[in-house]
Amino acid sequence: DFESAIAEIKPAFGAVTETLAAYVLNGMIDFGEPFRHLLATCQTLVEQVRSSEHTPLLTALLEGPAGAGKTALAATLGLESQFPLVKVVSSDAMVGFSEPAKAAQIAKVFEDAYRSPMSIVVLDDIERLLEYVPIGPRFSNGILQALLVLVKKQPPEGRRLLVIGTSSAPQVMADMGLADAFNVALHVPAVRDAEVATVLKALNAFEPSQVGAAVAGLAEAEVPIKRLLLLVDLARQGVPAGAPIPLERWHQVLRDLALN
Amino acid sequence: DFESAIAEIKPAFGAVTETLAAYVLNGMIDFGEPFRHLLATCQTLVEQVRSSEHTPLLTALLEGPAGAGKTALAATLGLESQFPLVKVVSSDAMVGFSEPAKAAQIAKVFEDAYRSPMSIVVLDDIERLLEYVPIGPRFSNGILQALLVLVKKQPPEGRRLLVIGTSSAPQVMADMGLADAFNVALHVPAVRDAEVATVLKALNAFEPSQVGAAVAGLAEAEVPIKRLLLLVDLARQGVPAGAPIPLERWHQVLRDLALN
Amino acid sequence: DFESAIAEIKPAFGAVTETLAAYVLNGMIDFGEPFRHLLATCQTLVEQVRSSEHTPLLTALLEGPAGAGKTALAATLGLESQFPLVKVVSSDAMVGFSEPAKAAQIAKVFEDAYRSPMSIVVLDDIERLLEYVPIGPRFSNGILQALLVLVKKQPPEGRRLLVIGTSSAPQVMADMGLADAFNVALHVPAVRDAEVATVLKALNAFEPSQVGAAVAGLAEAEVPIKRLLLLVDLARQGVPAGAPIPLERWHQVLRDLALN
Amino acid sequence: DFESAIAEIKPAFGAVTETLAAYVLNGMIDFGEPFRHLLATCQTLVEQVRSSEHTPLLTALLEGPAGAGKTALAATLGLESQFPLVKVVSSDAMVGFSEPAKAAQIAKVFEDAYRSPMSIVVLDDIERLLEYVPIGPRFSNGILQALLVLVKKQPPEGRRLLVIGTSSAPQVMADMGLADAFNVALHVPAVRDAEVATVLKALNAFEPSQVGAAVAGLAEAEVPIKRLLLLVDLARQGVPAGAPIPLERWHQVLRDLALN
Amino acid sequence: DFESAIAEIKPAFGAVTETLAAYVLNGMIDFGEPFRHLLATCQTLVEQVRSSEHTPLLTALLEGPAGAGKTALAATLGLESQFPLVKVVSSDAMVGFSEPAKAAQIAKVFEDAYRSPMSIVVLDDIERLLEYVPIGPRFSNGILQALLVLVKKQPPEGRRLLVIGTSSAPQVMADMGLADAFNVALHVPAVRDAEVATVLKALNAFEPSQVGAAVAGLAEAEVPIKRLLLLVDLARQGVPAGAPIPLERWHQVLRDLALN
Amino acid sequence: DFESAIAEIKPAFGAVTETLAAYVLNGMIDFGEPFRHLLATCQTLVEQVRSSEHTPLLTALLEGPAGAGKTALAATLGLESQFPLVKVVSSDAMVGFSEPAKAAQIAKVFEDAYRSPMSIVVLDDIERLLEYVPIGPRFSNGILQALLVLVKKQPPEGRRLLVIGTSSAPQVMADMGLADAFNVALHVPAVRDAEVATVLKALNAFEPSQVGAAVAGLAEAEVPIKRLLLLVDLARQGVPAGAPIPLERWHQVLRDLALN
Ligand SMILES: Nc1ncnc2c1ncn2[C@@H]1O[C@H](COP(=O)(O)OP(=O)(O)OP(=O)(O)O)[C@@H](O)[C@H]1O
Ligand SMILES: Nc1ncnc2c1ncn2[C@@H]1O[C@H](COP(=O)(O)OP(=O)(O)OP(=O)(O)O)[C@@H](O)[C@H]1O
Ligand SMILES: Nc1ncnc2c1ncn2[C@@H]1O[C@H](COP(=O)(O)OP(=O)(O)OP(=O)(O)O)[C@@H](O)[C@H]1O
Ligand SMILES: Nc1ncnc2c1ncn2[C@@H]1O[C@H](COP(=O)(O)OP(=O)(O)OP(=O)(O)O)[C@@H](O)[C@H]1O
Ligand SMILES: Nc1ncnc2c1ncn2[C@@H]1O[C@H](COP(=O)(O)OP(=O)(O)OP(=O)(O)O)[C@@H](O)[C@H]1O
Ligand SMILES: Nc1ncnc2c1ncn2[C@@H]1O[C@H](COP(=O)(O)OP(=O)(O)OP(=O)(O)O)[C@@H](O)[C@H]1O
Ligand SMILES: [Mg+2]
Ligand SMILES: [Mg+2]
Ligand SMILES: [Mg+2]
Ligand SMILES: [Mg+2]
Ligand SMILES: [Mg+2]
Ligand SMILES: [Mg+2]
Repeated sequence: DFESAIAEIKPAFGAVTETLAAYVLNGMIDFGEPFRHLLATCQTLVEQVRSSEHTPLLTALLEGPAGAGKTALAATLGLESQFPLVKVVSSDAMVGFSEPAKAAQIAKVFEDAYRSPMSIVVLDDIERLLEYVPIGPRFSNGILQALLVLVKKQPPEGRRLLVIGTSSAPQVMADMGLADAFNVALHVPAVRDAEVATVLKALNAFEPSQVGAAVAGLAEAEVPIKRLLLLVDLARQGVPAGAPIPLERWHQVLRDLALN
Repeated sequence: DFESAIAEIKPAFGAVTETLAAYVLNGMIDFGEPFRHLLATCQTLVEQVRSSEHTPLLTALLEGPAGAGKTALAATLGLESQFPLVKVVSSDAMVGFSEPAKAAQIAKVFEDAYRSPMSIVVLDDIERLLEYVPIGPRFSNGILQALLVLVKKQPPEGRRLLVIGTSSAPQVMADMGLADAFNVALHVPAVRDAEVATVLKALNAFEPSQVGAAVAGLAEAEVPIKRLLLLVDLARQGVPAGAPIPLERWHQVLRDLALN
Repeated sequence: DFESAIAEIKPAFGAVTETLAAYVLNGMIDFGEPFRHLLATCQTLVEQVRSSEHTPLLTALLEGPAGAGKTALAATLGLESQFPLVKVVSSDAMVGFSEPAKAAQIAKVFEDAYRSPMSIVVLDDIERLLEYVPIGPRFSNGILQALLVLVKKQPPEGRRLLVIGTSSAPQVMADMGLADAFNVALHVPAVRDAEVATVLKALNAFEPSQVGAAVAGLAEAEVPIKRLLLLVDLARQGVPAGAPIPLERWHQVLRDLALN
Repeated sequence: DFESAIAEIKPAFGAVTETLAAYVLNGMIDFGEPFRHLLATCQTLVEQVRSSEHTPLLTALLEGPAGAGKTALAATLGLESQFPLVKVVSSDAMVGFSEPAKAAQIAKVFEDAYRSPMSIVVLDDIERLLEYVPIGPRFSNGILQALLVLVKKQPPEGRRLLVIGTSSAPQVMADMGLADAFNVALHVPAVRDAEVATVLKALNAFEPSQVGAAVAGLAEAEVPIKRLLLLVDLARQGVPAGAPIPLERWHQVLRDLALN
Repeated sequence: DFESAIAEIKPAFGAVTETLAAYVLNGMIDFGEPFRHLLATCQTLVEQVRSSEHTPLLTALLEGPAGAGKTALAATLGLESQFPLVKVVSSDAMVGFSEPAKAAQIAKVFEDAYRSPMSIVVLDDIERLLEYVPIGPRFSNGILQALLVLVKKQPPEGRRLLVIGTSSAPQVMADMGLADAFNVALHVPAVRDAEVATVLKALNAFEPSQVGAAVAGLAEAEVPIKRLLLLVDLARQGVPAGAPIPLERWHQVLRDLALN
Repeated sequence: DFESAIAEIKPAFGAVTETLAAYVLNGMIDFGEPFRHLLATCQTLVEQVRSSEHTPLLTALLEGPAGAGKTALAATLGLESQFPLVKVVSSDAMVGFSEPAKAAQIAKVFEDAYRSPMSIVVLDDIERLLEYVPIGPRFSNGILQALLVLVKKQPPEGRRLLVIGTSSAPQVMADMGLADAFNVALHVPAVRDAEVATVLKALNAFEPSQVGAAVAGLAEAEVPIKRLLLLVDLARQGVPAGAPIPLERWHQVLRDLALN
């Protein structure tokens, strides 16, 4: 049923490359040195695949908390690379697929990459691709084995491939042997302390003099960029366009909504 | 068999929107401040999706004890919103469906929502959708994974979507990663202390002077609204229409029926 | 295969209503106050469904030891009710059925009930419907989920439904969330102390002067009615019709047969 | 596939009744009082089904160590009863059958019994019918549930049925709820002490004066009848027909063969 | 699919009897008294089946360490017996077979045996037939149940059958109830102490004066015959045909190759 | 479905032998005595199969850390042997295959080997062939059983076969009984201490005077050859072809990339 599985997935295929930009919907805010260093390291890997003679295959795992910006970073690298083929393997496009259909879709993306001289394949949210749930735990071993093999399989002669995986569960990746199967693992952090203020300023969210108080209102020491952006947007409800968010409104949002 | 599953569910579809009102069969009794605050917070979320430019997708989980009124609240929000598409995904309409058929039905509701400019999708009684049972525990991982993806999947450009989930098992939601997948979690409480009297008065169940004694007859400090309504209705058996319930009848019902 | 499952069960259907009387094969012996109180409470529930405007659905779980008379009680209520539709869902008629076929049969009975203005559905021996076995434990989650949904699903407007479940394993019902899904849980007790004598007298089993000695011969303090009836019948072997059972014969039966 | 399962088993059916005598291949040796009491109790049950008006269904479980003679006893009762239908349900005739095919075959035997005015059904070696193995443990829940239902299902009006089960694992029967599902449980013991000598004499195995020494040679205090018969037969190898077994030969067999 | 399974296995069948000799590829070396006593006991069992009137079925389990010579012994008994039918059931010929196909093949061999007046069936390497693995543990319960039944099933009147099982895991056989299902269990030992020298001499492996030193070179006190034969053969590499193995070469082999 | 599985795998077959050289992509660097001793021992095994009369089947397991060079060593032996048939069984060519298809493919390679007078079959990365994952643990028992049988199955008369397995998880191999099923187990080590310098020199990676400092920069005492080669290649990014790697660049690579 692998054959039929391949047939099943064809119509969904055209959409894969088109969606690349949609993963950076809210842009990339430069919130400081850690972000810049991480970006530079990632760009090194892209260059290695582009230029080295001995590294036809390089594989990197981006891990960090939910909403830290892993997917946006991977998509940004893909967009910057200008490689002829950049594809994101995401569960978004595979809801309700059977395990063989998923495995076939993933394998198909790699097949396509093997035919292109230079490619990036993003394995987005590997826990979701694996249908992982901590209760049990349960996951699709078929998908896991496919990933373990594909992440180590040399491309045909003359082809070059960068595989970028993203995951919010580094321990799960380690337990499954996936962390070891990648050449490199890089941590994508949440926004911390002073960096939060940098982001709030970049968004023009508060009166400059109130940014400190706004930061103090957050209970946690660090907050993922995605969540920070949502909090600001919720607080802007009812605030005239362009005007700063009043501090009371900000505190009300933080209190009423047990935001994840 | 995803295709065939989709085929299988078509005839059941027309009925989904029609049933919206049926979930508020006994009206919404205003039993005090906590209820009003919760309702207002929920209405904020509806407004955010209606008006914000940066929040095309917002997701809220309503959790609380069985019979607390979670489903009635979600349905009420849907009715009030006047959004062009409001759909309830409920196990009621999927008894005996296979897992792929269920997953297909759920995905189909989201597909429909992606085609409407503004939508509300209610995932009602998520434990039942997941076929969860604490012994084991067992549940449908296929449905769980579909929910985990659909709850985080951005609608296409220009579409806005509010997803409201309901659940009586917040710990299960947390263990499965579903609680974290929603943006917001809100608690729907049972009726407490003075609020019980408010409800009994609103129902004209007792002689005003006997309401205090009727409340005292209840063993538990708090009681879900659904159960309170049933108790009153059972006690009314044999009581002439419009007449107040005699206290003895009330005590007999509380004693004889080990009501859940 | 739900469709085909429905097809599969059709021929078995005519028989369901006919068998109602067969569950009260040995009549209902009035063995005292607890029995009469229980019967009256149950009759209250039937009246509630018949007459209340706000309770279109009422659900009651009868639980008690094996052979206590749960099924006979449920069948008696059905016979007395004179409702246009009374159906017993029993594993007797589903030996060897696949899980989907069972679920379909159960759903079909509820479908029928939704078409009748007033109905009683008896879910007899829920552990057996669930294929429950304590080793593991194992059970059919498909059937369980169907029951959890059907027991809470409102009938269409204008229809009224009383669901009576029977079970010998109240803890299992609780663990599975089934106990909470029913509105009411009622205990059906075994026959105790003085009540045993009442039954033996009603059966004309012994010389009136020997009833006390006969009761004393029973090791256990309480005995389910079904077992008591079997013991008496076994003891009657070889005793001329109408004559009382000699005490020695009674003691021999109690000794030789490790009766369950 | 229940239908096809029924089709599958038809050809094997004629053979069932014919094999009844084959289960008592080595006759029934009267080895003393316990044996006679057990046989008499069993015969009582056959009479009850034959003559009582209130006991259309009676069910008895014969449990005891492997080789104790359970199957031979059940077959003997069947042969003696002269009932128009006596059938043995045995795994012997179902090697390699799928679970539904087994369940169908078992159900078919009961169907046949329901059509005969008076019947005995022997469920032989229930652990094997259940495909039970203590590692896990594993067993066929489908077969178990079929047995739990069939053992309690009343035959149609006017039909009478005695069900005899055999098992070497009473604890397993209890854990699975099967022991409680039978009306009566009777223990079939191994041969003990003086009874061993009775058997050896009945077989003319030794010089009368050497029987005591032969019994003393056995390590265990009790030995199942089937094993005792095999030991004697092995010891007879090389001994002229009709001649007694020399004690040395007997001891050699007991030493060399770690007989089960 | 039992039928189709039978169809699937037909072509492989002719080969079964032919391979009998191949299991004794390196002959049977008489390495002392324990070997001769075991062989004699086994031959007794063959004679019993050939000549006894009361033992139409006899079953023996040969257990011992891997490479001890269990299969070679069973094959030798089969060759010596001159029975019209001797068949080996081995996983060698069933690689990749489904469970029903394996069960069907095994049942087929017994069917053939029931048609022959006198037969030997060897169930070789029962752990492999059962697909046993200690992790879990896992095994095919379908095959296990088939073996449990077939090993106790009486052949038809007038047919005689000796079943010989082999196993390297006596504890597993006991846990599964297979050890008890066989009439006799016999231990096949590894080669020990002085017996090692006997084997080395029989093979003309060393200068007679060096046999003691060669034996001393072995770390373990006992060594399975199969492994001993391989060690000698590896040591012979580079040694002229017929010449004795130099001690250094022997020690090099023992050191370099962590032989199992 | 074994038949259809065989059909499924045919087109993939031609590629198997061709890929042999691709497993030694970066050549074999002689990094010292342990490497040479291991190579020589392996070559002895090839000679044994080529020349011995009594060893038609020899099986060796190469185990060692990930990237130690196990696959390259096995492929090198195959290339050197000049045997008419050398095949690598690798998961690379079986992504997404069902278990029966994998088992069929593996069996097919052995079938081919049985037809060639002299063969080498490499079972590469046995954990992957088994779809092993430590969580659970889970693995394909069907593949495991096929390997357990094939590794011990004698080739037909006149055929000779060397089976080389590779594995990074010796404990798993032992637990599954696979380690015992091979005749020989050999350890393939990572590069250690002074050997690291040998490799770096052979690659002309650093100024000769800086090799010591470069070795000191590595945190671990030993490093698999594959990883060492990748580190050097990454460090060469931006370094002119032929020029030595500056030490700072080397340290940056070691610091930034948490290399596995
Ligand atoms: N410096 C930044 N790095 C990453 N994302 C950023 C940054 N600045 C803004 N963003 C925005 O933040 C969001 C990050 O969300 P993203 O989905 O990439 O997070 P994630 O870590 O993949 O989350 P999840 O764990 O849910 O998959 C995007 O909308 C992106 O446009
Ligand atoms: N203030 C209120 N809030 C919610 N429901 C109310 C209120 N007042 C009256 N009701 C009535 O109470 C009932 C609440 O039942 P509902 O099914 O919504 O509870 P639930 O929490 O979804 O229960 P469950 O856990 O069984 O799904 C409805 O019939 C509704 O009409
Ligand atoms: N007062 C009584 N209540 C119930 N049953 C009675 C009473 N008097 C006599 N009986 C008879 O006792 C028997 C009770 O058996 P019934 O099958 O109803 O028990 P049960 O609790 O459903 O048993 P099980 O747990 O095996 O399902 C019936 O034959 C019924 O006719
Ligand atoms: N008094 C006796 N009772 C039962 N069997 C006897 C007696 N005397 C002799 N036999 C013979 O002993 C054998 C008993 O074997 P049987 O198969 O009935 O034992 P079992 O308990 O069913 O064994 P298993 O546990 O293996 O099923 C039969 O061959 C029977 O003919
Ligand atoms: N006395 C002996 N007994 C048994 N085998 C012997 C003897 N002498 C030599 N051999 C040879 O030793 C080998 C024993 O291998 P065999 O396969 O029978 O062992 P096994 O116990 O079945 O091993 P495994 O546990 O791997 O199945 C055969 O090649 C046989 O020819
Ligand atoms: N002495 C050597 N031994 C083995 N490989 C070497 C040696 N020198 C260089 N190499 C190169 O090192 C690499 C070893 O990688 P290989 O895939 O064989 O390792 P492996 O142990 O099979 O890894 P894995 O555990 O990932 O399967 C090959 O590219 C090979 O060309
Ligand atoms: Mg992401
Ligand atoms: Mg609800
Ligand atoms: Mg009942
Ligand atoms: Mg028996
Ligand atoms: Mg063997
Ligand atoms: Mg390798």
